[in-house]
Amino acid sequence: MPGRNLNAMNDSTEYTPPEVWTWEKESGGKFASINRPIAGATHDKELPVGEHPLQLYSLATPNGVKATVMLEELLEKGCDAEYDAWLIDINEGDQFGSGFVEVNPNSKIPALLDRSTTTPTRVFESGSILVYLAGKFGEFLPQEHDARTETMNWLFWQMGSAPYLGGGFGHFYAYAPEKMEYPIDRFAMEIKRQLDVLDRNLAEREYLAGDQYTIADIATWPWYGALARGLLYEAATFLQVQEYKNVVRWAEQIAERPGARRGRMVNRSWGEPSSQLRERHAASDFETRTQDKLEPAEND
Amino acid sequence: MPGRNLNAMNDSTEYTPPEVWTWEKESGGKFASINRPIAGATHDKELPVGEHPLQLYSLATPNGVKATVMLEELLEKGCDAEYDAWLIDINEGDQFGSGFVEVNPNSKIPALLDRSTTTPTRVFESGSILVYLAGKFGEFLPQEHDARTETMNWLFWQMGSAPYLGGGFGHFYAYAPEKMEYPIDRFAMEIKRQLDVLDRNLAEREYLAGDQYTIADIATWPWYGALARGLLYEAATFLQVQEYKNVVRWAEQIAERPGARRGRMVNRSWGEPSSQLRERHAASDFETRTQDKLEPAEND
Repeated sequence: MPGRNLNAMNDSTEYTPPEVWTWEKESGGKFASINRPIAGATHDKELPVGEHPLQLYSLATPNGVKATVMLEELLEKGCDAEYDAWLIDINEGDQFGSGFVEVNPNSKIPALLDRSTTTPTRVFESGSILVYLAGKFGEFLPQEHDARTETMNWLFWQMGSAPYLGGGFGHFYAYAPEKMEYPIDRFAMEIKRQLDVLDRNLAEREYLAGDQYTIADIATWPWYGALARGLLYEAATFLQVQEYKNVVRWAEQIAERPGARRGRMVNRSWGEPSSQLRERHAASDFETRTQDKLEPAEND
Repeated sequence: MPGRNLNAMNDSTEYTPPEVWTWEKESGGKFASINRPIAGATHDKELPVGEHPLQLYSLATPNGVKATVMLEELLEKGCDAEYDAWLIDINEGDQFGSGFVEVNPNSKIPALLDRSTTTPTRVFESGSILVYLAGKFGEFLPQEHDARTETMNWLFWQMGSAPYLGGGFGHFYAYAPEKMEYPIDRFAMEIKRQLDVLDRNLAEREYLAGDQYTIADIATWPWYGALARGLLYEAATFLQVQEYKNVVRWAEQIAERPGARRGRMVNRSWGEPSSQLRERHAASDFETRTQDKLEPAEND
């Protein structure tokens, strides 16, 4: 008897799950149309390919911004990391096109194709893209044993934590079709704990893994940095993000970096038109764009 | 007006979040006592230390099993990966002891201390532990470019996906104080999609990253392998896990490996007594234990 709760048998609001889950296509709130219980392509569509070795297929959500900040930071360092960034419109289902699914069978942005290798290399999952690019160009992942280990610790911390922020808190606080107290409370508590974990770490260090800016920061900033700066889910007051002073300090410090400022604009298709760069093919593409800090009121 | 839903203003069941979230210590269902909105230690407690260079502080949940399977697989390969595994009882709050927090400021199992380095190295997050041990012993993370990249792709896939299984589906289907249709439906759909992603990949390959057994398999098997074998959350019927035939094939194949069989017993403090090894300090510790496949009815 799945779901039978003996303490609540007289409570008519109690829900009993069916024996077998079935797909009700109408449910799900915002983004319902892009959630499916099956994987694979829904239609044939080739991906565009530009002139650079690195082809990025993405969108300027926090996970997408990780990849574009990394690429722009590499270019700032003088690495030959020129790339073409193509917009994947997830509301239009671009992630279910056959070409995209070949690069990322998980149908999520960002996805990277490296055409400089003997056969093109697909790289998917933002964390894997960061490690791949760090290895390819020898930047932002220290070689020294202790610093490297600590970078990987915090990189994986971000990967395992952010689903509670995006898929948990953000969904139930901002996007679900109705507000539900229990899920909002559960995920708010966890996000405050995560912010406190970061805050205590950044009380003792300039960056997450020590005194160097690494892929751990690049992975974490688009999520927890945006949250601490009041740019995610209009949740700054609810979560009292200003209490996490070290996270705010770190987030603002990174926001001033030219690589982070440019990276945040790439594949952006909403907000102030001058802050958007829907596709990026050359450094000069940024010239007509505003590189100032984006407006705090503008939500991801 | 956070949470105001204009379409539902006359619906008395609508919930409006407060301006500022506050901690109600009584809420949260099973495991409520171990969920906190603040990080850091709650009490002073040193960690025990054994004779081996590697000290593991863990519990045989799926995340913990990743680390113990990896260590037992390394020993099977003849690597000098002898270790002491100490039980961290998360229901007793061991993860909030000062010694544990020094090794993992995130207060989650598993956590590893490598005492063979000049200063002891802390390694936390199961994914970071797998990468660290793979690098230290040169096993289960291929050196060859394409296989290594694909291993990292699927390793990070697991890290970003499993929170939807454990913290999402598992929590709302099995542990929350009452059953709620919307969260159960949301997470069931996502978990079926994830199973389908794995199934399509394993239709073409023996292992997740190709023809080699890697840390991507070691990371994924304790979650999705257990789910496909009917060992997680009594959800086999609800999710129709038997439909994912390639996942079931892969999961059963790995379950036969001596390293996986031993790894699953370490730091186990529930179920059949003969399948438990609460602490592990030597290979001979397994001699009195059942190394047969654990009973399918026994839930994690």
